[in-house]
Formats: sequence, structure tokens, C-alpha cells
Amino acid sequence: MNLLLLTSDDLVPPDRACIRDSRRLRHLHEIHRATVGEELTVGMSNAGVGRARLLELERDRALFEIIHLDHLPPPALPIHLLLALPRPRMLARSLENIATMGVKRLTLLHTARVEKSYWQSPELQPERIDAHLRLGLEQARDTVLPTVDIQPRFKPFIEDQLPDAIIGHRALLAHPGIGESCPRGLPMDQGVTLAIGPEGGFIPFEVEKLQAMGFEGIHLGPRILRVETAVVSLLSRLF
Amino acid sequence: MNLLLLTSDDLVPPDRACIRDSRRLRHLHEIHRATVGEELTVGMSNAGVGRARLLELERDRALFEIIHLDHLPPPALPIHLLLALPRPRMLARSLENIATMGVKRLTLLHTARVEKSYWQSPELQPERIDAHLRLGLEQARDTVLPTVDIQPRFKPFIEDQLPDAIIGHRALLAHPGIGESCPRGLPMDQGVTLAIGPEGGFIPFEVEKLQAMGFEGIHLGPRILRVETAVVSLLSRLF
Repeated sequence: MNLLLLTSDDLVPPDRACIRDSRRLRHLHEIHRATVGEELTVGMSNAGVGRARLLELERDRALFEIIHLDHLPPPALPIHLLLALPRPRMLARSLENIATMGVKRLTLLHTARVEKSYWQSPELQPERIDAHLRLGLEQARDTVLPTVDIQPRFKPFIEDQLPDAIIGHRALLAHPGIGESCPRGLPMDQGVTLAIGPEGGFIPFEVEKLQAMGFEGIHLGPRILRVETAVVSLLSRLF
Repeated sequence: MNLLLLTSDDLVPPDRACIRDSRRLRHLHEIHRATVGEELTVGMSNAGVGRARLLELERDRALFEIIHLDHLPPPALPIHLLLALPRPRMLARSLENIATMGVKRLTLLHTARVEKSYWQSPELQPERIDAHLRLGLEQARDTVLPTVDIQPRFKPFIEDQLPDAIIGHRALLAHPGIGESCPRGLPMDQGVTLAIGPEGGFIPFEVEKLQAMGFEGIHLGPRILRVETAVVSLLSRLF
């Protein structure tokens, strides 16, 4: 945690914040080993980054004086990530990585090789998704929560919603062995939609469907990466 | 596991292999759900990649007929990775990622911000390191085990061994906020040594020491990544 991410619920007007949840308190106590009087980097959800001074630190609460919150968070990546729903543990880490790397728009999608049981995972509860995203933002000193859109049906999403979503975007389909090598250093002012399949990949029908819509196939070479690794690798190559 | 990695101990001359360890058997039974008669991709440690047919599958053994082992594993990255020893759980995942991405030379190094307790972790036992590397290789369909060199003392390693190790290499020091943005798409015929610090980074003394030896500072922008994410991100940008 390189930034303590505050929400409006934490605010004590005019210029204080009080946190009471075990996750952030445990971090302050055990990892950061914060001491009263110390200044920390803080951020307000979907707003600025700044500094706060720790005024009181108890087992069940921490009180801060907010010094300022007037810096911008780091720039976002101009990407809409379309990710086949990964297995639950991999989803958790992927959400953290996605938030850390600056993705602001994520669609979790069903595809033929996504196990149906994954859709019942508690990791898909909004509060769990939110917690993973916040961890990722705190790592990167970001404050802007990605929006996460859940699409448990492939065809209706692809046919009814995706065509509008990719207007003006460069649409890329990451799939081992197809198309060109993943491009590098894309301009930050060009929207990109990037589709990443599940373990085992998209099936041929899905690849054809996406290619017919204008998705360009890209690959990362002969090595097959785990989904969570592929996400980081693709984002790092593209931007 | 996209390849079943065999060792010479598994071989039953002239053309069979028998595996008996719980990790690979569990994978065959539970994840791959292999059936007798099926062909699988196999590889021999530090040698070729090929195909084998499953002849018998029991709870405690699997017997294969090796069809061939004459393909080359994917090309290696021309990099020597110098990694400050991460916390044990992060070490495990980093070892897998490093092997998956094609790093063949890894030095795990002590630096001022590496907690001393990490050096007592069971994850540093050679058989644990080997197991994580094998998992990573099997993911990438590689067979060539990285060499891992353990250096629990910073100064003697930096002063006595590193100068020779970087001869002919481009030496890069990944550190937030210094130098240039991480270069992209380096040639595969130029050796690179890449130093990556611990959580919290290298201390100024260490940065100066490495820079004085010719290491160029590089960074990945304003977002601070976890070590395991930074490793993947840097390798993906560099090559």
C-alpha cells in the first residue's frame, strides 16, 4: 500500500478522516508500522492524491488530518479490457494487477472454455471486486476505480453491445499463434479494446466472431502465459 | 501445465517414461483429465520437446510411450536477472513467472530493504525453487531450467562478482523515478543484466553503487508495481 485510499464515508469535515476497517488498520499497524505525527500519502476515491498526518492510532480507528489532496492520480491507460472470466484465485490477482496498471474499464465475459462454476464464485460479489481493485489502486497510488461490467453470456454481449463499444477503438484479440506480434508503445490518445481469452484460449468460433467484427489477432510469441501474467505482459507491451 | 516436463529419472529405456510423483499425477488426473491412449506434449529437462502417448494411468503411476522429443524449446531471453530477494510468497510466484518468460539466469540478492527473515524461508530450499521453476517451464512449454544463484551479502557480490558478470552486457537498474523510461524491444543478441530492487526499492547507496558500475537507471512511469508484477512488466517491455 503506497497510498491510503479514502472514501467519502471516511471524511470528518472540515479536514479530517477516520478509518475503522480492519484491512487498512492492519496495514497501518503491521506493515506500515505507522506512528502518530507521521505524514502519509493519501488519496480520495475518484479524486485527488495528497498528504495526511496521523493524529491518533488505536486498535479500532485511525484519525488523520488531511493536509492536501490536490495532486492528480497517475494517467489511465486508454483501454477497455475484455477478459474471459478467470478462475477465482486468478481473478483476484488479475483485478489487483489491472487496477495497478491503470485499466479503467473491464468487462468479465463468459466464453466456451470458462468453467460455469466460476460464475458462482464469491470473488464476483461487488464488494470483493471492489476490495481487490482498491488494493491494486493503493499499490499504484491511483484513486480512480475501474468500472467492471459482468457479461455471463457471450453471444448477446458480442452481438448487441460490443459493436458500439469498439467504435473509434483499435480492437485487438490476444490469442497464441494468430496474427502479428503484440504491438509496442501505442499512442495514449487512441482507444484500444483488448480481448484476452480463458485458460485454454478462445474456441475457433469465438476467434472468428471477433475477427469478423474487426479484431486484429496479436500474440506474445511461443510461450503460453497464465492469464494473470498475460494481462500484465500485454499491457506492458502495448503502452 | 501445457507440457509434461520429464527428467532422466522418469525414463524407462528404450522409449518409455513413468512418472510417480503426486504433483504431476494430480495434474494428469484432476486438471488435464487425461485418458489412456491420449497424446500429450512432453519435454525432457534441458533437452527437447515432443509428444508421448499415455499407456497406463493409475493413482500412483502414469506410463507413457515417448513418440518423439525432437523439437527445440522456445528461445530464451538474453538476460541475467538480479532480483532482491522478495517475500516468500512473492518469491514463489516470481520464480514461476521468471521461468515462464524465458529467463535462464537469476541471482537472488540481499539488499538493505530485504527483511533478514526472508533468507530463512523454506521457499529458498533448492527443491522448492526447482519445483516453482518447473511449474513455470511447464506453463511455457519450455524445458531449460534457469540457474539460480543465491547471494545473501550485497557488497561482496557487487564488488567481487558483478563486474565480471556484466562484461559485454547492457546493465539496467529498474528503480522508480530514475533515468529513462524502460526501453522497448531490445535485440535478442545483446546480453542484458537487469537489477530489480525489493519492496521499498534499493537504498540510495545501492543505486549509486550500481550506477557507478555502469548500470543505467530505467523506470516504468509513476505507478509503483509489486515486485512480481514489475518483473513481468519489465521483461515484456524489454523483449
